[in-house]
Amino acid sequence: MITNPTLLLDKKKCRANINTMLSKSKRHNLEFRPHFKTHQSLEIGSWFKDVGVKKITVSSVSMAKYFSTQWNDITIAFPTNILEIEPINALAKNITLNLCIENEESISFLSKHLIYKANILLKMDVGYHRTGINPDNSSLMNTILEIIDVNPLLTFIGFLGHSGHTYKCRTREAIKDEHSKSLGVMAKLKKEYIPQYPNLIVSLGDTPSCSVADDFSGVDEIRPGNFVFYDLTQNLIGSSSIVQIAVALACPIIAIHKERSEIVIYGGGVHLSKDRLEDKEGVIFGRVVRKTENAWGDIIPDMYVKSLSQEHGIISVPNNEIDNYKIGGYLMILPIHSCMTSNLMKGYTTLDGQKISRL
Amino acid sequence: MITNPTLLLDKKKCRANINTMLSKSKRHNLEFRPHFKTHQSLEIGSWFKDVGVKKITVSSVSMAKYFSTQWNDITIAFPTNILEIEPINALAKNITLNLCIENEESISFLSKHLIYKANILLKMDVGYHRTGINPDNSSLMNTILEIIDVNPLLTFIGFLGHSGHTYKCRTREAIKDEHSKSLGVMAKLKKEYIPQYPNLIVSLGDTPSCSVADDFSGVDEIRPGNFVFYDLTQNLIGSSSIVQIAVALACPIIAIHKERSEIVIYGGGVHLSKDRLEDKEGVIFGRVVRKTENAWGDIIPDMYVKSLSQEHGIISVPNNEIDNYKIGGYLMILPIHSCMTSNLMKGYTTLDGQKISRL
Repeated sequence: MITNPTLLLDKKKCRANINTMLSKSKRHNLEFRPHFKTHQSLEIGSWFKDVGVKKITVSSVSMAKYFSTQWNDITIAFPTNILEIEPINALAKNITLNLCIENEESISFLSKHLIYKANILLKMDVGYHRTGINPDNSSLMNTILEIIDVNPLLTFIGFLGHSGHTYKCRTREAIKDEHSKSLGVMAKLKKEYIPQYPNLIVSLGDTPSCSVADDFSGVDEIRPGNFVFYDLTQNLIGSSSIVQIAVALACPIIAIHKERSEIVIYGGGVHLSKDRLEDKEGVIFGRVVRKTENAWGDIIPDMYVKSLSQEHGIISVPNNEIDNYKIGGYLMILPIHSCMTSNLMKGYTTLDGQKISRL
Repeated sequence: MITNPTLLLDKKKCRANINTMLSKSKRHNLEFRPHFKTHQSLEIGSWFKDVGVKKITVSSVSMAKYFSTQWNDITIAFPTNILEIEPINALAKNITLNLCIENEESISFLSKHLIYKANILLKMDVGYHRTGINPDNSSLMNTILEIIDVNPLLTFIGFLGHSGHTYKCRTREAIKDEHSKSLGVMAKLKKEYIPQYPNLIVSLGDTPSCSVADDFSGVDEIRPGNFVFYDLTQNLIGSSSIVQIAVALACPIIAIHKERSEIVIYGGGVHLSKDRLEDKEGVIFGRVVRKTENAWGDIIPDMYVKSLSQEHGIISVPNNEIDNYKIGGYLMILPIHSCMTSNLMKGYTTLDGQKISRL
């Protein structure tokens, strides 16, 4: 029974999302190394194990530590935070640890302070311009590779990129275009460095590209994460359908204001997150779906979260809908960004009532 | 030592903020019932006890439960969520519990299902239009009061308002104007109902009004919350100075991109929250302050958080500043909204290294 904001997880949809991405990676001969930052749950991780996944991606040392009890090949897809050298060494001692490097300072530090073996990926800027080495900067790449090559604990294993700029796309074609530019960048690097490092891999991995693209030429590994749940952002940019979204926040109805066509829910920024989307209504913070017997169905047209404060959410409700709701009922809301909502909710409740914990 | 994003708390500033608000409430003969939703910490709560505060405000049943181990007079300033009748009864059994009502359905439900005494405040809409009874709707107020009056477990104790629309103000004068309209609404209600309910109180309480206003005519109680830490939003709208802001997020530097005047920090939406502010630079997510020996000082001009992803933050850095930073150092960032940042960080570290837990 719902009494508080509760993050519901449709296990069937989630497992279907996992299977779809796994099949796609097999079809394209790609190593599937899912990013676990979205769910951050050992239990959900085990659903990947069930279908044969052996390697994972995370985005912090803390996450790597959490998953290292059950996974022994982990990539931290985040520029190495040298301040965490102690837990990095603890991980490197016990598992195959793959670290990302994008500057000389970090690799010099690792070279001095790492006391166990670790694999190194060069984090490349494929166009997102958040982090990564400019692919034209051969001098920096070579400096880093020289430091790696002389240290027996360090092994250069390849190039890692993240086309995060696909999130700015609004059509499947636009995503494919950006993805294809990333392929071009990576192909050039591979060609240049493979004579010297015959086993190097190319790892790419944003959910939009992995969901939409048909061409993965030159790519060896993909690392999508958000696809495990998807969300309204992925739907807006064209990488998922609404029925693939596997999480919804159930929120008690605490006030109804017919005079302004609004429902107030117990469910605010501390539940949904303040992540927003610019859609046809302007800025929105979530959309309401229709309740079905034991799950949820379609989006209710023109019914959306119009604002959020800490614990309250204001729902804009069409006039022909508002009489269907009452104080003491609850609404089900698809999140704008499932990674952020999951992080805030700290756990999941499956449709059959199972509680699933997370980091 | 900082190794991870860490929410630093300047205890001296925090205690000074508490003292300033307490003095103001004494000066105006107001009951000071601080809102604890910002800090959500028993330890920080005890600093209010130290100066004689005896009554508090929270915004959820869970928070009331958490604080009920040390506080025995708690107002839940949130429309009663009747789905939580079980924990509400558990609280009502043990403490003086003050609940907010804004519709007939909830009070009818309480009247039937509450098995211990509770006080009822009518939640009035003083202009924010989020929740609350329209002050012209005497018919609804009277219906609710009739239900209360015939039930010996329920006691009507007064009117509660929240001028949340002051957050849209950008000057102290504008805040005072909105506050004075709220005073007008409440004065009228008080005049009308005091003959029948001679002990009724008027409770108001947004941080901007409580920080800025000099006139509290007719008000009996204030419930500000955010003032305990303040933040950049409060500063922008004119309710606090930068030196009053008592929390800052320390974030490791993981990448420096001089070519685009950017520093990348380990510190993202899961730490700062995606709360944003439109300031002179456009949308920002935080500002960087200068480190001092054992605390922080002024804002560094033109150095701010320009974007956030889940774990990364991108800092825009002036050219004359960027050489002062290195990989493996850390930045200190003032949050846009301290309530949201505190909620995400789950605890505080004082400047002398004490760890303070929260709900």
